[in-house]
Amino acid sequence: MNVRVGVIGVGMIGQDHIRRLTQVLTGGSVTAVNDVDAARAGQVAAGLPGAHIHDTAAALVADGNVDAVLVASWGPAHEEQVVAAIAAGKPVFCEKPLAPSSAACQRIMDAEMAAGRRLVQVGFMRRYDAGYRAMKAALDDGGLGVPLLMHCAHRNPSVPDYGFTTDMIISDSAVHEIDVVRWLFGEEIVAARVLMPRRTGHAPDGLQDPLILLLEMASGALVDDELFVSARYGYDVRGEVVCENGTVALADVDEVTVRTQNRRRVVQGGRPPQTPPDGDRVPVDWRDRFVRAYDTELQEWLNAVAAGTSTGPSAWDGYAAAAVTDAALEALRTGQLTAVSMAERPEFYAK
Amino acid sequence: MNVRVGVIGVGMIGQDHIRRLTQVLTGGSVTAVNDVDAARAGQVAAGLPGAHIHDTAAALVADGNVDAVLVASWGPAHEEQVVAAIAAGKPVFCEKPLAPSSAACQRIMDAEMAAGRRLVQVGFMRRYDAGYRAMKAALDDGGLGVPLLMHCAHRNPSVPDYGFTTDMIISDSAVHEIDVVRWLFGEEIVAARVLMPRRTGHAPDGLQDPLILLLEMASGALVDDELFVSARYGYDVRGEVVCENGTVALADVDEVTVRTQNRRRVVQGGRPPQTPPDGDRVPVDWRDRFVRAYDTELQEWLNAVAAGTSTGPSAWDGYAAAAVTDAALEALRTGQLTAVSMAERPEFYAK
Amino acid sequence: MNVRVGVIGVGMIGQDHIRRLTQVLTGGSVTAVNDVDAARAGQVAAGLPGAHIHDTAAALVADGNVDAVLVASWGPAHEEQVVAAIAAGKPVFCEKPLAPSSAACQRIMDAEMAAGRRLVQVGFMRRYDAGYRAMKAALDDGGLGVPLLMHCAHRNPSVPDYGFTTDMIISDSAVHEIDVVRWLFGEEIVAARVLMPRRTGHAPDGLQDPLILLLEMASGALVDDELFVSARYGYDVRGEVVCENGTVALADVDEVTVRTQNRRRVVQGGRPPQTPPDGDRVPVDWRDRFVRAYDTELQEWLNAVAAGTSTGPSAWDGYAAAAVTDAALEALRTGQLTAVSMAERPEFYAK
Amino acid sequence: MNVRVGVIGVGMIGQDHIRRLTQVLTGGSVTAVNDVDAARAGQVAAGLPGAHIHDTAAALVADGNVDAVLVASWGPAHEEQVVAAIAAGKPVFCEKPLAPSSAACQRIMDAEMAAGRRLVQVGFMRRYDAGYRAMKAALDDGGLGVPLLMHCAHRNPSVPDYGFTTDMIISDSAVHEIDVVRWLFGEEIVAARVLMPRRTGHAPDGLQDPLILLLEMASGALVDDELFVSARYGYDVRGEVVCENGTVALADVDEVTVRTQNRRRVVQGGRPPQTPPDGDRVPVDWRDRFVRAYDTELQEWLNAVAAGTSTGPSAWDGYAAAAVTDAALEALRTGQLTAVSMAERPEFYAK
Repeated sequence: MNVRVGVIGVGMIGQDHIRRLTQVLTGGSVTAVNDVDAARAGQVAAGLPGAHIHDTAAALVADGNVDAVLVASWGPAHEEQVVAAIAAGKPVFCEKPLAPSSAACQRIMDAEMAAGRRLVQVGFMRRYDAGYRAMKAALDDGGLGVPLLMHCAHRNPSVPDYGFTTDMIISDSAVHEIDVVRWLFGEEIVAARVLMPRRTGHAPDGLQDPLILLLEMASGALVDDELFVSARYGYDVRGEVVCENGTVALADVDEVTVRTQNRRRVVQGGRPPQTPPDGDRVPVDWRDRFVRAYDTELQEWLNAVAAGTSTGPSAWDGYAAAAVTDAALEALRTGQLTAVSMAERPEFYAK
Repeated sequence: MNVRVGVIGVGMIGQDHIRRLTQVLTGGSVTAVNDVDAARAGQVAAGLPGAHIHDTAAALVADGNVDAVLVASWGPAHEEQVVAAIAAGKPVFCEKPLAPSSAACQRIMDAEMAAGRRLVQVGFMRRYDAGYRAMKAALDDGGLGVPLLMHCAHRNPSVPDYGFTTDMIISDSAVHEIDVVRWLFGEEIVAARVLMPRRTGHAPDGLQDPLILLLEMASGALVDDELFVSARYGYDVRGEVVCENGTVALADVDEVTVRTQNRRRVVQGGRPPQTPPDGDRVPVDWRDRFVRAYDTELQEWLNAVAAGTSTGPSAWDGYAAAAVTDAALEALRTGQLTAVSMAERPEFYAK
Repeated sequence: MNVRVGVIGVGMIGQDHIRRLTQVLTGGSVTAVNDVDAARAGQVAAGLPGAHIHDTAAALVADGNVDAVLVASWGPAHEEQVVAAIAAGKPVFCEKPLAPSSAACQRIMDAEMAAGRRLVQVGFMRRYDAGYRAMKAALDDGGLGVPLLMHCAHRNPSVPDYGFTTDMIISDSAVHEIDVVRWLFGEEIVAARVLMPRRTGHAPDGLQDPLILLLEMASGALVDDELFVSARYGYDVRGEVVCENGTVALADVDEVTVRTQNRRRVVQGGRPPQTPPDGDRVPVDWRDRFVRAYDTELQEWLNAVAAGTSTGPSAWDGYAAAAVTDAALEALRTGQLTAVSMAERPEFYAK
Repeated sequence: MNVRVGVIGVGMIGQDHIRRLTQVLTGGSVTAVNDVDAARAGQVAAGLPGAHIHDTAAALVADGNVDAVLVASWGPAHEEQVVAAIAAGKPVFCEKPLAPSSAACQRIMDAEMAAGRRLVQVGFMRRYDAGYRAMKAALDDGGLGVPLLMHCAHRNPSVPDYGFTTDMIISDSAVHEIDVVRWLFGEEIVAARVLMPRRTGHAPDGLQDPLILLLEMASGALVDDELFVSARYGYDVRGEVVCENGTVALADVDEVTVRTQNRRRVVQGGRPPQTPPDGDRVPVDWRDRFVRAYDTELQEWLNAVAAGTSTGPSAWDGYAAAAVTDAALEALRTGQLTAVSMAERPEFYAK
């Protein structure tokens, strides 16, 4: 079966998903696009033979040639668009965050439960990365025993000089670890605290960078997450889970080892192999590091849509991430340990 | 454009390519199959809605719903099938070897030159592996200087107890290094020698395993290739090129590092990430190690067919590999340094 | 010059230092021993031709055949013994802790300042480890920029079932990181906090294990130190300093890589090379991991004594470590961020 | 016991051994020196209080204050000096080669057998390296099964522009692998062949560099040894033994990992830890890579001399290395596979 996808929001991320649907994956096509910027929608549609441009997201959702909806608009628009897809009974893949507040996420869950069927998948792509999957498998295997701690680091080389706020270090960057630790540990986060280390001189004015986010799991396990968005040296994501009987850590991803001029270096991968490598570099772009995770994520979504099932991160996962993000943002403001306020997990979202 | 592929030979490798065309890649579909085993052809076609079963390879090639042909039959049948595709003016992807003798390969080249257009691609998938591509890029960059030596190892855990001969260590295993060193060094192999080390007790009766294949390049550079098909511990492919200013080596491919029971281990990848990892293992199957290379190889072939171009290993590459294999097999019989007998490279196959 | 050393306290650590002085290092000999257990002193002295057994530490210090004193008794006895050595004008190497309280350390400093000459070195051996020294050199080089964060882990396989208290995780284990971060960062620690993660089921009754110790440096830089003394899988010490322009981390110390049974393993070192390795293991004993650091530490002390100089960790370093330990122990009891109470650094101890 | 050592030959290597005996190791002192260059002998002795300068090697050997002799003169002088020490009944440590020809080595063995006691140790220091020792232990353990192959590489950054001949690549560099593979495999080398790859443009005029030395063991196992003395990028020694059940390889020796400017690098060690590291470099000097092996070698020799035993590489090992070197040099001249001409191992030298 070919899944006909309508894409709402065709900025950088939306265009990347369109490239993936049309040039990399199988079983999907893009039949409709919508964007608040009509000119951009037109430019993108020009490269998609047969794709219809819709003036509104609602019109796209209603299009009979759209089997499933991909939401890549900006966060504040997600709720209305996702709820419209639910109302139309169409599967919807929504980029993170599911919505900017846990209350908005709650309304999406209410709509989905009222519809009586799981239709929403949230774009937490790290769950599809080979490293995190191997880590999850090692934990689920049981040989390592109960997890007690996790050490994470999330480093970007830089952020734009204007417009990137300290809050966004939590809501845009840390949200990935927030989701992935819930998934790896198989339990909820109950409290958050934020520490402010010495500030780097390379951060834009007004940005408190780096941060340390501490998360407390329901079991008492603790997670420390270094968030450093002006790290300069490269994009780097690290993780180690410490268990009762041993540890499991993400490995470095290398292609070749180069020895020259009294140096031993590694060339790291993650790029599609058809792209020539740029020398012995740490990946500088999150799309490089997680390019295969994005591919796998969307392929599995297409497969699930075609099969009429639902397999990925759910609206509940989007809600839980939003609730923890809310607590972490309050912890950032107050400097205090902050409890996460979260509803009971509905039976509808039982694993 | 959707490339409609007809598949000749639907054994293990043919079926794997069909899975790839239908479940992994974009831009292709399987519209026809043929196999010497009609029952097997029927079983495979049953999973391919709309695919036609042809009694003969010739009929498949002639099918108007076939834009391009994929040959995965046994080696002795390749020549006739590839030449038929050339005669029909259809692009043809042929699994290695292009043909069992350099003379047969020469006839394929003659047919292709007579047709006046490059239509043949040979299935040397290592050229599409991220590690070899990074190695090629490091060499082409020039900073390492002229290549002088290459050390290779090609290890399989085991081979079948019956039917796998010492000759096949050259023709089935070493042929991959034979192609890849021609490609990495950008020059031809001019002589071969085979050394016979102490035989492992784990080799099937009558099999001389391991072997060392020594290759001499036109520039005088030397390649040593350890071929060990009863290596037991796992499937492992290694390579290091030694240049005037430094070296470049394939890195180990790890996903995570596990520390437990006084051990530090790595979990190696290569499998599609949707497959759960099997613990801390060296890949045991060549399809694991090179799964992404196979995907990339066939995707780029589809892209080239759709674009009306030709990009991969050519009939000349298939011919050169056959000529070197002939010399290596003679070297195996005689124990002597054996010159490769090879025609001049026709202008038609200039790089 | 041969430095004649008198050793006070000949338990496990004292005996190890005697082995080092007599069998590994050059320029020193052991001419006198003392221990609260006279029988043990006799047994040890029996292996040291010409060494005198003293009934009291004071008598050993006064011995005309003792040029320098090594204190390896239990902590509460250190102050009196070290002050006696200072009073006698003899260089003294004192195992950590210098004394069990910062007040006692202050009295030692007062005695040394009154004597007008630096005579005391404290046994913080990590400063002599090749890894930490390479890290220090990388930081001092300046290319990495200002340090902002450090992540540490300090894992022991197990502790005795009885007698090891949660306080000792701070005073015996964390004290190594407390000293080494002061040295690496070149600044003092101003506050401490202790977090209690989920407790491992492998900890002895009553022991809260693991802990996370958070340290705040004068510059605002933060250090997180995982302390896990029932980690089971092995002895493992890790460290990464995150700076404005990059990071530097302790590497794993491997001797060989073994590939067998679908596994790739490393054999780690640290043992004296004359000891046969035990297979592919993580070091299980701190003496293995830091054996060369201990050797270097004591050799450099002998060299400094012979040269009449003083180069290692000083009484000030012992005092500062005690002051931070006091704060960390209070933080453990209260769960609060606790300021370190520390005197101004006297000019006498200027770097 | 203090071993009083007389050193014959105080050039670079002799001085390094004197530094080791006086500043690093325990249980030895230097009481006498001799050199063909009397001025150099005088300069070196000036730094050794109480050491006597002898006009001749014979006089040094006869000195009553010399318990044991260390020969670090040039190769052609070794035979006479070693035989003199044997005649005097004094243990003698002789730098490699034991003597420049196997016939000369045979005469040394004859003298030692006539003396009826093992007195000679040859300076093959790799047997004392932690990596090779871990490799030996892994092989002797038996789990890897019978060794079938070994791949070696021996790379120097450069050699002097004048005076270094192609023969010396065999006699000075390859001799280390010749000894170490005999020791690792526990059997003799029976034949040698030399291959000449493309020559690097960085080799001095007239030097054929790199070379490949192929060695055949008595069991049929094969060893390939890349010898590359103008490798530029650094000093690098590699080794992997391939066995029936798996492989064991020397690991890279790293102290720290530095991530900066989109690069991940390692700082390699081997230097004495008191030396500040030079940044992220591959060791450039063989004394760096094997500094600890040299220390261990000489310490174990001192210990054996003091105990009246003999433990290290024997005159037989020196003879066998010379016999293989002779064959390899003939193979270099002729390009042919050359059998090693070697006497039966005398019972006197049974393991």
